[in-house]
Amino acid sequence: MALDIAAASLQQARALAEAQAWPNVGQLQADIYALPFPPAGFDHLFISYLLEHLPDPLGGLLALKKGLKPGGSVVVVEGDHGSCYFHPATAEAQRAWQALITVQAALGGNSLIGRELYPLLRQAGFQNVVVSPRMVYIDHSQPELMDLFVRRTINPMVEGVKEQAMAMGLLDQAAWQKGIDDLYRLADSPAGTFCYTFFKAVAVKPLERGEE
Amino acid sequence: MALDIAAASLQQARALAEAQAWPNVGQLQADIYALPFPPAGFDHLFISYLLEHLPDPLGGLLALKKGLKPGGSVVVVEGDHGSCYFHPATAEAQRAWQALITVQAALGGNSLIGRELYPLLRQAGFQNVVVSPRMVYIDHSQPELMDLFVRRTINPMVEGVKEQAMAMGLLDQAAWQKGIDDLYRLADSPAGTFCYTFFKAVAVKPLERGEE
Repeated sequence: MALDIAAASLQQARALAEAQAWPNVGQLQADIYALPFPPAGFDHLFISYLLEHLPDPLGGLLALKKGLKPGGSVVVVEGDHGSCYFHPATAEAQRAWQALITVQAALGGNSLIGRELYPLLRQAGFQNVVVSPRMVYIDHSQPELMDLFVRRTINPMVEGVKEQAMAMGLLDQAAWQKGIDDLYRLADSPAGTFCYTFFKAVAVKPLERGEE
Repeated sequence: MALDIAAASLQQARALAEAQAWPNVGQLQADIYALPFPPAGFDHLFISYLLEHLPDPLGGLLALKKGLKPGGSVVVVEGDHGSCYFHPATAEAQRAWQALITVQAALGGNSLIGRELYPLLRQAGFQNVVVSPRMVYIDHSQPELMDLFVRRTINPMVEGVKEQAMAMGLLDQAAWQKGIDDLYRLADSPAGTFCYTFFKAVAVKPLERGEE
């Protein structure tokens, strides 16, 4: 069951499931804080790049946990934009990256949530919480990975907040453009390196249901 | 052969070697930019937390490489203070950590050098350069590691630059003390998490000696 509040995203999910001829993938439009499921119906939750966008990630986790069977498991995968650093680290490239964090915070999200998965899952009452970082390190010995990750994933993501960053006055037009250009130059340069870390958490809903 | 420019450090190394009854460890006081060795005499170099302190890390690498036999290998281990992030990330704790980076830069070093090992070794003419990050992630599921790494290693290191940070006006006394207190509270808190990444590089000096 794929769940989203945005109809457009579900449309994409449906098209993908049809194109791949996946027979057992349902789509449902719903608000995570008011889920239309009976309690304790699911065996497993997979939560990916969701909590970073929620104004109340703990509330979201608690709402999802209600739908999970006691003894059921959860996997959470989130990034942490504060884990990102690179070389050469020009002032403008760092400011453009920082704008991504600031814009997401202004939208009510928290792009630094990866480092918080352990306390969040504990506070939500999960047990056996194990968090492991998944660090991406790229240098010029892996030009294909640099292309895929920096040029085609990271840089477009940064460019995606240009309008909001300008509107918030985080950088002027020239500084923004130099920051973006520097990030693309880094991806081309034999001296360029790039680091980013994802966090994966696994945990279990306790068999005792006292906390619900 | 343990090499250092500081007599006090060599004294410690000598005492350790004697206490452990290591028969084959020599100590030599020397300037890394003017090493008293014939060229191409060593089979292997082990460089650890050195380049971060050099005003000219490339020059240091080149000087050390002269002493290495063609086909000889090198291992370099350095940290990267820009790889550090934590939760809770109070403004004062972040400023205290940033002071460590600023003070080391003012002393002519570069505590962000881990991310630069690949281009540095390539620029120094090494081949088969492979850099791998060694990330330390700690949450409250590992209280002993939190104690060893944050309370007994990281926090004293930050506290060590207090005098210079005050002299440089990076923080006032109250902000500094709150930053340090916050770092110790983090180590105690069930919600505290801490991340730091070391970088290890291995490489080989080419058999062709044209670049020397």
